[in-house]
Amino acid sequence: MLSVILLGTGNVAQHLYNALAALDTVNLKQVYGRNTEALSYFKNIAVTNKPDHILNADVYLIAVNDDTIKAVSQLLLKKNGIVAHTSGAAPLAHIKTSNSGVFYPLQSFTKGKRVDFSTIPFCIEGSNNKTEATLLELARKLSSKVYTISSDQRKTIHLAAVLANNFSNHLFTIASSICQENKVPFAILHPLITETVEKIKHIGPREAQTGPAKRKDVLTMQSHMDQLENPLHKKIYQLLSESIIHTYEEKL
Amino acid sequence: MLSVILLGTGNVAQHLYNALAALDTVNLKQVYGRNTEALSYFKNIAVTNKPDHILNADVYLIAVNDDTIKAVSQLLLKKNGIVAHTSGAAPLAHIKTSNSGVFYPLQSFTKGKRVDFSTIPFCIEGSNNKTEATLLELARKLSSKVYTISSDQRKTIHLAAVLANNFSNHLFTIASSICQENKVPFAILHPLITETVEKIKHIGPREAQTGPAKRKDVLTMQSHMDQLENPLHKKIYQLLSESIIHTYEEKL
Repeated sequence: MLSVILLGTGNVAQHLYNALAALDTVNLKQVYGRNTEALSYFKNIAVTNKPDHILNADVYLIAVNDDTIKAVSQLLLKKNGIVAHTSGAAPLAHIKTSNSGVFYPLQSFTKGKRVDFSTIPFCIEGSNNKTEATLLELARKLSSKVYTISSDQRKTIHLAAVLANNFSNHLFTIASSICQENKVPFAILHPLITETVEKIKHIGPREAQTGPAKRKDVLTMQSHMDQLENPLHKKIYQLLSESIIHTYEEKL
Repeated sequence: MLSVILLGTGNVAQHLYNALAALDTVNLKQVYGRNTEALSYFKNIAVTNKPDHILNADVYLIAVNDDTIKAVSQLLLKKNGIVAHTSGAAPLAHIKTSNSGVFYPLQSFTKGKRVDFSTIPFCIEGSNNKTEATLLELARKLSSKVYTISSDQRKTIHLAAVLANNFSNHLFTIASSICQENKVPFAILHPLITETVEKIKHIGPREAQTGPAKRKDVLTMQSHMDQLENPLHKKIYQLLSESIIHTYEEKL
């Protein structure tokens, strides 16, 4: 049975702990963290804040801030197991041991909110075939969506996720503040947003595009621009409309 | 029993027809449309393309392009029933009869894809209390989410929907093209997008915001800017990051 040690005590570490501890095909041996208070989250498992007390295992998963990955991997220089980090942004090279890898669950985790790991895509990378195979095996125990992804591709995914996730969320925030100012419940837009997301899964976002910019409905766009008061929101409206028009002109 | 006549043959008319025809508490009497070929979609119901042959009913629902609403409402000047349009953008004043109203289902309809009307928000407006009450009654037969919304509020909703729906879809399109260029399946982002939408329903988009701009992680933002090649996409990245930073600075 694969033995695993978790390094880190934050949000991702907690979610991974819950998911791994629930598996009876994995031996989750220990959690390491510098902060004793944070370690108290992890029940029914050996914990340590002393680097010298880290046990031996097949896989070490480093779930810490990107800036701390290098330092934590230095603690494991004498270990024979695989050392993998769980970051979307950090390159494989941040790990200083020979059997290095990436074990990146592509999801935004919220503290205290359980997630269903079986639907989370895992991006796996290994410094050699055997390492990669072991990490793929471990990921497949948690999820049905496991991908081999290079560091370069992972960089792309991270950028795409910022656009698709963080930026669209910000548009929802702007829409919600406009609703609030005009005493309209933002919830009125929930079904529309849900339907759009369903649509992109089925026909893809390029085909799903609708709206005044797609139709080049200049009058409606002008009226929307007049309605917007915040100068940054005006700029966003103008720029995204321009980009939509440009995207579908290219296609002609 | 409320009698209803539908005017229009397009996408919205077809979806409304399917939903209304399924109700046994509404007498859907007739569909009017200029185009005989388009009328052939409507089965088991009287159809006409002659304005003089439009029957009498309690409610006339005009489901045509915004530009044609005024002209179609002119055909009904001698009728006593309520005349309501189904547009998100057109003002109530576009209807030239005295018992005028708005009966706006807030959803983006796709041809051929059945929708569950019971979850679609309806925005209702009436030129007088009795008209409004009748339209609310009709909407409640179709959906559990019925709102009384003024023309001004409807304008707000339309603008907010463009931001939350059309613009976020465009961000998905950009993310998808970046994935494609780097041979990463866009589907890898689907669970992340779904989770974000779930989150905004529970904690609201303002609280759900994550990402490098929220954290003011300048190094990651710079690296993303370097990765982007399309000048419009670079501008979008910069502007939305600026707007996120600005939004959370205000809060401090």
